[in-house]
Amino acid sequence: MSTSTALPLNEASACCAPLTRQPLDAEQAVDLARLLKAIADPARLRLLSIVAASEGQEACVCDLTEPIGLSQPTVSHHLKVLMDAGFLSRSKRGTWHYYALVPGALDSLATVLVTA
Amino acid sequence: MSTSTALPLNEASACCAPLTRQPLDAEQAVDLARLLKAIADPARLRLLSIVAASEGQEACVCDLTEPIGLSQPTVSHHLKVLMDAGFLSRSKRGTWHYYALVPGALDSLATVLVTA
Repeated sequence: MSTSTALPLNEASACCAPLTRQPLDAEQAVDLARLLKAIADPARLRLLSIVAASEGQEACVCDLTEPIGLSQPTVSHHLKVLMDAGFLSRSKRGTWHYYALVPGALDSLATVLVTA
Repeated sequence: MSTSTALPLNEASACCAPLTRQPLDAEQAVDLARLLKAIADPARLRLLSIVAASEGQEACVCDLTEPIGLSQPTVSHHLKVLMDAGFLSRSKRGTWHYYALVPGALDSLATVLVTA
């Protein structure tokens, strides 16, 4: 894993049909597992859900640390993992960084899992 | 994590609204992360996708080892993780065990992720 670059979510969704349609090959499974690992962490899920549930699906980093109860460096690390995996994007306005949900990123992942 | 029992998927879906609706609390995030971790592994994703894409969403264990290229004990371990997390069920017919996708399990997870 350490030798690979992060795979943007859009590429992952292009690579994988829904699981019920055809079995994943080895490469697709590695790509999909990497995306799932990025969100398979309680702190990252909480951060992602705070951003996702915020107005405009965007939140100031200044509003992300206190509710999670972790240090700023730890929160920054988790936010970076979510950005590297393509779930969040970041922009700077004034003093603060703002994190936004990348449109379609979570939905692409959901589409791979849906069996109906 | 080692002190908790596996949480059936149906309970997880009951616990969590879609991420865009409201932020997860700490307990919900732990439950959801546990489910995502169960599938965030290339071998388990491939096993799950073979079962999901099989007729009747069920496959004989005798058809699961060869395509993955792992030993039978390793495959059995991965199948147990998927069963413990509520994604697969197992039944015995004749000599062989058959693994079936638990109806609604993956869909419940997808519902939590969908943002639309």
